[in-house]
Amino acid sequence: MPVSGSPPPFLFDLDGTLIDSVYQHVMAWQEALSACGIALSVWRVHRRIGMSGGLFLNALQRETGRALDPGALAALAEGHREGYLRRASSVVALPGANELLAVLASRGVPFAIATSSAEQVAAAGLALLELPPGVPVVTRDQVQRAKPDPDLFLAAAAKLGVSPSSCFVVGDSVWDLLAAQRAGALGIGLLSGGYGEQELHSAGAYRVYADPADLLAHLEETGVRPPA
Amino acid sequence: MPVSGSPPPFLFDLDGTLIDSVYQHVMAWQEALSACGIALSVWRVHRRIGMSGGLFLNALQRETGRALDPGALAALAEGHREGYLRRASSVVALPGANELLAVLASRGVPFAIATSSAEQVAAAGLALLELPPGVPVVTRDQVQRAKPDPDLFLAAAAKLGVSPSSCFVVGDSVWDLLAAQRAGALGIGLLSGGYGEQELHSAGAYRVYADPADLLAHLEETGVRPPA
Repeated sequence: MPVSGSPPPFLFDLDGTLIDSVYQHVMAWQEALSACGIALSVWRVHRRIGMSGGLFLNALQRETGRALDPGALAALAEGHREGYLRRASSVVALPGANELLAVLASRGVPFAIATSSAEQVAAAGLALLELPPGVPVVTRDQVQRAKPDPDLFLAAAAKLGVSPSSCFVVGDSVWDLLAAQRAGALGIGLLSGGYGEQELHSAGAYRVYADPADLLAHLEETGVRPPA
Repeated sequence: MPVSGSPPPFLFDLDGTLIDSVYQHVMAWQEALSACGIALSVWRVHRRIGMSGGLFLNALQRETGRALDPGALAALAEGHREGYLRRASSVVALPGANELLAVLASRGVPFAIATSSAEQVAAAGLALLELPPGVPVVTRDQVQRAKPDPDLFLAAAAKLGVSPSSCFVVGDSVWDLLAAQRAGALGIGLLSGGYGEQELHSAGAYRVYADPADLLAHLEETGVRPPA
């Protein structure tokens, strides 16, 4: 239930939203797929980043018309994990990410992070952020279903002790924005994951900004006011 | 001058249009920029792929507010070239690319390739295509200005002996489509370079398809008819 008078809590996606890691995920998936003999164009991989890995692999089997046995599915997931971590040293925080989180913290705006990544991969990204103590983080391991199901954002709101419908969800992918709608939250899209602006609007974005720095520059639009 | 009755000639971009190489270019540029101490978000690099490298570096200096001396500019260009060629073994032809070119050839539709890449980088990509003998290829070295200037497509049309305004330009980036408009040609956008559909329409695309296979599946829409 939205509360009048207080700024909305923020639920942040991680990859492509706070850290510049989408393209490393894309290349790691493509490498893993290629190693398993699966040819999928790179742009099609890109458009799946941020969704549940399980759903990605389901869709992949349908699209390629090729059923994968449990061993192949495990090899793909492990290949992606290994390939991403090998590339993780080139990942940095997105412009304005730490500044945005610091401003929210200084103004008493609650926020949490909710990512489709498993704990180990998420930890490598979280290490790039200067998170104040006590910021809730929800990873893939903690929920039954990842994006575009709403579970991650519902769990993040629960950890903050707020209603999901009172929150802004900030994400770079259509999966974040679809999950936001499922959670009853308003979605803020960021171009920093490489989607087009219209793709984010079509997935239900309430507003679209370039990256965290651009969101910070327009923060009043979300109801977060400067100190009186 | 468009000619009634004959199918239009096709002028193809190469990277992201016929071969699946855009993300390798993106990572190579980001690596080169990072090695020169320049932090630029990866999605911003992505949105510049396909434009003239010189214009890219001009825009980069304006956006970062940092002037680069000729040595740094040369190091960036060489770093990208080296980084791309190191990744080139993972590049493949896009789905339907060779089939599309074969169908055009079999139906007597003239076509050419026009790329912002220099000859050495372009050669690695052209080797993935089964080009019939005599298909004109125009590379960066052969014109004064690359995309979004129209020179590459004008030169390609000249090599075919046709008017640019009678041609379809097929490309994955907004730079292709802007250059197509400058050349007086109709632009066909492909999603296979990772741009959003609306971005391509906003840059003037006459039609947008997923990739070469999807264009081939809808080839009648371009006026190329099956054999009588």
